Amino acid sequence: MQTVWTVTFPDRDLLARVQPLPAGIEASVWDLRSGPEGIALDAIDAVILPYIDASAVLGSLSKTPNLKFVQTQSTGFDGVPEAAGPEAAVASASGVHAAATAELAIGLMIAKLRGIDQAVRDQQTGNWQPQRRSSLADRKVLLVGVGGIGNEIAKRLEPFEVAITRVGSSARGDSTGRIHASSELAALAQSHDILVAVTPLNEHTHRLVDASVLAALPDGALVVNVGRGPVVDTAALTAEVLSGRLHCALDVVDPEPFPANHPLWSSPNALITPHIGGNASAFEPRIVKLLASQLKALASGDRPANLVQSGPF
Amino acid sequence: MQTVWTVTFPDRDLLARVQPLPAGIEASVWDLRSGPEGIALDAIDAVILPYIDASAVLGSLSKTPNLKFVQTQSTGFDGVPEAAGPEAAVASASGVHAAATAELAIGLMIAKLRGIDQAVRDQQTGNWQPQRRSSLADRKVLLVGVGGIGNEIAKRLEPFEVAITRVGSSARGDSTGRIHASSELAALAQSHDILVAVTPLNEHTHRLVDASVLAALPDGALVVNVGRGPVVDTAALTAEVLSGRLHCALDVVDPEPFPANHPLWSSPNALITPHIGGNASAFEPRIVKLLASQLKALASGDRPANLVQSGPF
Repeated sequence: MQTVWTVTFPDRDLLARVQPLPAGIEASVWDLRSGPEGIALDAIDAVILPYIDASAVLGSLSKTPNLKFVQTQSTGFDGVPEAAGPEAAVASASGVHAAATAELAIGLMIAKLRGIDQAVRDQQTGNWQPQRRSSLADRKVLLVGVGGIGNEIAKRLEPFEVAITRVGSSARGDSTGRIHASSELAALAQSHDILVAVTPLNEHTHRLVDASVLAALPDGALVVNVGRGPVVDTAALTAEVLSGRLHCALDVVDPEPFPANHPLWSSPNALITPHIGGNASAFEPRIVKLLASQLKALASGDRPANLVQSGPF
Repeated sequence: MQTVWTVTFPDRDLLARVQPLPAGIEASVWDLRSGPEGIALDAIDAVILPYIDASAVLGSLSKTPNLKFVQTQSTGFDGVPEAAGPEAAVASASGVHAAATAELAIGLMIAKLRGIDQAVRDQQTGNWQPQRRSSLADRKVLLVGVGGIGNEIAKRLEPFEVAITRVGSSARGDSTGRIHASSELAALAQSHDILVAVTPLNEHTHRLVDASVLAALPDGALVVNVGRGPVVDTAALTAEVLSGRLHCALDVVDPEPFPANHPLWSSPNALITPHIGGNASAFEPRIVKLLASQLKALASGDRPANLVQSGPF
């Protein structure tokens, strides 16, 4: 006897790339905005969320009375367990985004420090204006977040002649050295030139990088966020960046996106990318590989990987 | 008996940072534009060239009849031996710029691939426009230049999940593997996504990256130049970039700077920084250390480091 799972894909393209489906998986397309294609909502067993703007459509999950499994395409899963309900399992796409997000973090650091952003603006008027800037070499980097992406950032930073201090939720050690507790953040900030935030969003990390941490950073320090916008206190950061005391390079913001009149849009001390951390070619082969393996687990009655809420498993 | 060397510094600031001078070194300030401060041209034994725009003032070296030593602040030294004349030694600042230039090369690659440049333009109008771009991860990189800076680029690229192919003047091997000859460049270009040029400029490297090499690169490939502008055929590159077939990220151009009406200034497929490769905070401690050591060598009658023309040594 074969258990059949009805799984929805957010778009036809992703469904095509995961072919062939294992026996026992029946697929439909549902973008969580209009209705699912060709099936009733109560037939849906499992939902693959869209990658972009998933949080805007999470409310649709409550329309599926028989939901047992939700797969995100993002590393973060804030709000998904609540939207899926306690009966459903939730799995993240942990690992899929690490390479792309880590390289963007390094790119944002170098771009902001070395003035690549200013060069782009100067290019628009054909203005050749060399300036001596801070190098990444010789900088002290405070890396807040030691999960999969944080580790990939540390690995990539290693050859750049920097000193790296790592901060996790609690003080501990691992194979590459010491991890400080997040309670030490303000004290550590005083002696670092760059703070990189790459933590999941939860009640412990919400505004973890608050006004006191930002105030402790030395003049001219750079704040980079490639995790979740609300991990940084945007109002406090905005004040420090507009005053010219701090710089920032943000791939995630709060609220996201910023409204058109947000003052950071027009500050030369802010570099903003539109949450593209994991949104790169590296993503495609890696998400397809993860989805194929998750569907195979469902079809075989095995436990899927990356569960952040166990539901029936 | 002490030999006394009269050495000119291009600016007062640099002279101050190299204090105290060793016994046997007398210093003056000469920017090679107006006359030297407080001494006659025939009293000058050694000249430290300015870092910025040195090529524009090289002609002044011919006014110093007793010149024995010229120190550049750049890694490149094109035109300096000719301007100094065969009686004078010439030393480069090899090593001083490696960290800063290598990190800029990585920053330019990530910025152009991931659309950080487009994000800067979008930021000016508050436009949040996520797009899936090519990641650096999974790319094949053709690194043309295996000197000090080339090696530092390779070291920094290593953890980014890329495949690196190295090209030098001639085929050989070193401790990190195979080096291809520059004669193989067009054949190698066919199978690479990114070409990074970081060679000195000489008769072998002038337009080494020519129309045939550029034509061999696959559609959508990225050309990065952090070495010397004339190593790339600018006319051929411009045609490929304006057609949309190739992208480029250039810290050096030919002619340098581009005239205000050069079409690459306004192409979204081109990212141009104003020759800032070595011009970063990493430079200062490293050039001061080199100059102190070179002056000590002169005062002691020892051979200075980094000689590219031996003159009296």
